[in-house]
Amino acid sequence: MDTLNHEQITSLFLALGILLAAAKILGELATRFKQPSVLGEILAGILLGPTVLGTLAPRVSAYLFPTQGTGALVLDGIMTLAIVLFLLVAGLEVELSSIWRQGKAVLTVGLAGIAVPFALGFTAAELAPKLLGSTAGEAAGSHPLIFPLFFATALSISALPVIAKTLMDLNLYRSDLGMMTIAAAVFNDLLGWIIFAIVLGMMGASSAQTFSVGQTIGLVLLFALVCLTLLRWGIHRLLPWIQAHTSWPGGVLGFALSLALLGAALTEWLGVHAIFGSFLVGVALGDSPHFRRRIRAVIDQFVSFIFAPLFFAGIGLKVNFLLHFQPGLVLAVLLIACAGKIFGCWFGGRIAGMAPREAWALGFTMNARGAMEIILGLVALRYGVIGEPMFVALVVMALVTSLLTGPALTRILRLRHPCRLSDYLSSRGFFTLTAGDRETALREMAAAVAQPTGLDARVVAETILARERQMSTGLGHGVAVPHARLPDLESPFVAVGLSPAGIDFEAPDGLPAQIIFLILTPREDQGAQLEILAEISRLCRQPEVRQKIMQTGNFTEFLALVNTR
Amino acid sequence: MDTLNHEQITSLFLALGILLAAAKILGELATRFKQPSVLGEILAGILLGPTVLGTLAPRVSAYLFPTQGTGALVLDGIMTLAIVLFLLVAGLEVELSSIWRQGKAVLTVGLAGIAVPFALGFTAAELAPKLLGSTAGEAAGSHPLIFPLFFATALSISALPVIAKTLMDLNLYRSDLGMMTIAAAVFNDLLGWIIFAIVLGMMGASSAQTFSVGQTIGLVLLFALVCLTLLRWGIHRLLPWIQAHTSWPGGVLGFALSLALLGAALTEWLGVHAIFGSFLVGVALGDSPHFRRRIRAVIDQFVSFIFAPLFFAGIGLKVNFLLHFQPGLVLAVLLIACAGKIFGCWFGGRIAGMAPREAWALGFTMNARGAMEIILGLVALRYGVIGEPMFVALVVMALVTSLLTGPALTRILRLRHPCRLSDYLSSRGFFTLTAGDRETALREMAAAVAQPTGLDARVVAETILARERQMSTGLGHGVAVPHARLPDLESPFVAVGLSPAGIDFEAPDGLPAQIIFLILTPREDQGAQLEILAEISRLCRQPEVRQKIMQTGNFTEFLALVNTR
Repeated sequence: MDTLNHEQITSLFLALGILLAAAKILGELATRFKQPSVLGEILAGILLGPTVLGTLAPRVSAYLFPTQGTGALVLDGIMTLAIVLFLLVAGLEVELSSIWRQGKAVLTVGLAGIAVPFALGFTAAELAPKLLGSTAGEAAGSHPLIFPLFFATALSISALPVIAKTLMDLNLYRSDLGMMTIAAAVFNDLLGWIIFAIVLGMMGASSAQTFSVGQTIGLVLLFALVCLTLLRWGIHRLLPWIQAHTSWPGGVLGFALSLALLGAALTEWLGVHAIFGSFLVGVALGDSPHFRRRIRAVIDQFVSFIFAPLFFAGIGLKVNFLLHFQPGLVLAVLLIACAGKIFGCWFGGRIAGMAPREAWALGFTMNARGAMEIILGLVALRYGVIGEPMFVALVVMALVTSLLTGPALTRILRLRHPCRLSDYLSSRGFFTLTAGDRETALREMAAAVAQPTGLDARVVAETILARERQMSTGLGHGVAVPHARLPDLESPFVAVGLSPAGIDFEAPDGLPAQIIFLILTPREDQGAQLEILAEISRLCRQPEVRQKIMQTGNFTEFLALVNTR
Repeated sequence: MDTLNHEQITSLFLALGILLAAAKILGELATRFKQPSVLGEILAGILLGPTVLGTLAPRVSAYLFPTQGTGALVLDGIMTLAIVLFLLVAGLEVELSSIWRQGKAVLTVGLAGIAVPFALGFTAAELAPKLLGSTAGEAAGSHPLIFPLFFATALSISALPVIAKTLMDLNLYRSDLGMMTIAAAVFNDLLGWIIFAIVLGMMGASSAQTFSVGQTIGLVLLFALVCLTLLRWGIHRLLPWIQAHTSWPGGVLGFALSLALLGAALTEWLGVHAIFGSFLVGVALGDSPHFRRRIRAVIDQFVSFIFAPLFFAGIGLKVNFLLHFQPGLVLAVLLIACAGKIFGCWFGGRIAGMAPREAWALGFTMNARGAMEIILGLVALRYGVIGEPMFVALVVMALVTSLLTGPALTRILRLRHPCRLSDYLSSRGFFTLTAGDRETALREMAAAVAQPTGLDARVVAETILARERQMSTGLGHGVAVPHARLPDLESPFVAVGLSPAGIDFEAPDGLPAQIIFLILTPREDQGAQLEILAEISRLCRQPEVRQKIMQTGNFTEFLALVNTR
């Protein structure tokens, strides 16, 4: 029986450990700069792969991330498993019902949003294949339409996860515009993936010979149809039985995962990539209301936080990004991609009767490309349809369009980012109070915040006390929230004072306040104060949180508590 | 760049999907017969591996689960990853603090519980190595003590997960005896694993040449010491910072997993198996109170429900269990294992001042062996220390001792299994009521349960109504729990009647009852009624559950609801 030897196991775990650690660290750094974490994760791979480490220390890079032999194959197997599971999660997020609920407008936007970039991409690739780096002509016997079709598809699929995340971050997810965008993106994705499956069938058919192109396309369409109808119906019927008669949550988890793996095997066998099968199984599974949120969360968290970063870091390992960076090509791809998508969605939105501003917002949101383009590019690279420079250009295009979405949307809709309590806490505004009465305590806190905010302590104290005299700010349960809006403040600042003995804040329940949040917000920013107040009240509603706050020894533990609720 | 080809990917996902599905289905069947699920999971591998499928359809088996070439290596890599993650979970379950809390008695029991089986195993292996199927003599240059040491260790390690699960199932986990057993098992495990690491070092050193035996042992002990002191302290310090400054829960998850992978790489490099590193990292991580339950749950659920079944099914693939089943050897291993462990723990318990009955209970509980023996056996098989027959004997021993634990403990302590509501529900006792008043409704339900329980409908009705006249059983919130203890009933029976219009049960809140649980229990079984009542009250306390019960169309959906709360 062939097994991995001592050295192979060592290098496998070392590679996985280093790759995961680097991806998580750079991913976190990216979010720190308000960028999508996938940017940092790919960067981690670029640093550890041929681009940087491979150039600086080729032997270390070759030992950790071998490109030939058993080590490379095992790593490729694990990465393939990772991406298949990630596509399962992507599929679970698709809500078929939301497409129907939004009616005809979604169809218009979704169709225009895919037709325009597709047509533009196809034309460009047909007119200037060499300029765009097509290698399809070189691969023996491959169909002349493969490269234009691939390029058009790669420009047409929106990044559902990025769009959903951006809308959530901006508190727009549940708005009309948000639901419309999500529904259009889902429709867009489904359509794009079916076209992609056809292109994959054409690629696959030219290398493997199990089925002809026509057969592959027919069978894949049949499989997609079965997944979206029969399988969906069957799963919906079966889930209550599984939950009634197997252990919870192991039974459902096992069912979902084995179905996804088998779906992956089936589509790979049919001649398209394994990811297509797990994606469709995910759509069929996620659509059933019997598929509980807890199961979704377990799969989602393990896959999104462990497997996805490993996979995206793995992308950076594939290619030397510096060597294959061709500025002209990158710019051309980026321009064609943005022009087609933004104009197409704007056009669809206008036809569907949206206001110009909303239609632009829709266009810029749908413009986000992401993981899917990269996966598509990877498959095309594997089958020799594109070369390394085009792959690099696609990755850059996906990253840049994703980066643009948030700022563009904020600008167009003149939004402001919602306030998050943890952004305004600081170790310099966290202390234990010595005062025994309300006024002394508030003066003590005002004095403490003067330095970090650059305000005059006396002005702060008077403003808070004036507010306090109008109505006391004791919330009850030992929590008080004195607050003030100040003209000279640039951004909100929240100080936290702990008083083990308790200070009377005239709370409705008569309990003395032990946790005092002093909330200072800029006078112009109307919403900030309310948002921060709401978050504090949500946080302190849980008795165990109040208790833990009183036990925290230091600011870091306090911040950890706020962050993990 | 070497990547898996089309056919390899197809067979990989087909293999994983089939293996997982079979493992989950047979695992569920095992729990249905009140057996540990690991039994069914291993059986799934035996059915799909060389033992059954390999004999009946060798070509199918060879295609799905290749034993040579790239396919075998990739599968081996994924299985190794699975077991490394499973050991991380096992490590997370170890509570170092509980060892100290239970004081000296734990040390006595733990030491005696490892020393006696170890001595017995060592002696047996020294006296009759050939009888026990040692192959160590044949492996060139291997140390003569390796086989006795391995055999002694394999008999000494208890199966912490099996023990914990058994105690929980019997409601003994939080009892004095339960905490004592768990603490002793933890101590036992840690000691056993350190000895195992030494044995592994001796095995590894004879094949790979990075370190000498002495160096490996020294470095592994040093690593264990560092994990249990410095690393543990460092993690405890670092966790609040990570939770405060990274995204939740992705940051902590990534930290835990990369640490485990790197620990695995380190111990593999030192010359012992990778699993030892992730186990120790797990112990160091799990011991910090900052390591939140939610993170634990995400890792635990994904690994225990997906990776562990895959791994255990994979065990069945390794060996032809029928061909290598030697009844004499299996019996000898089983007897030596049971005698040493049960007597050793009983002896330790008696010295520590336990009553004879408790000491026996302790002995039989600690006798449970499981995953660890199998993993140990797998490693020994890989390094050629044992042959297939001994491996089969170890697997059988682990399974049989695990199977014995529950029944033995129940018998010794004269326990009864706690009642679970879902065990007494039946589709024949689930219906919509037509009656509008209490007496008619209860007579209707009594008539309906007569057939499935074999009782006289009139006797049932009179007993319930008599009870109802003493005090009404309306719980409030639209729930009523009429109940009766009946002489001729063999096991409890719970019928559920839904009344959309509501029936007055004189509830404290005056609301008419829409959900009526009719609870019938045997007259002799004092506890059953109370336990079922408590579970119903817990279930119906949640408003959304009451609402969903009223919406369920059929019994399966109702049972799913009860099971997944």
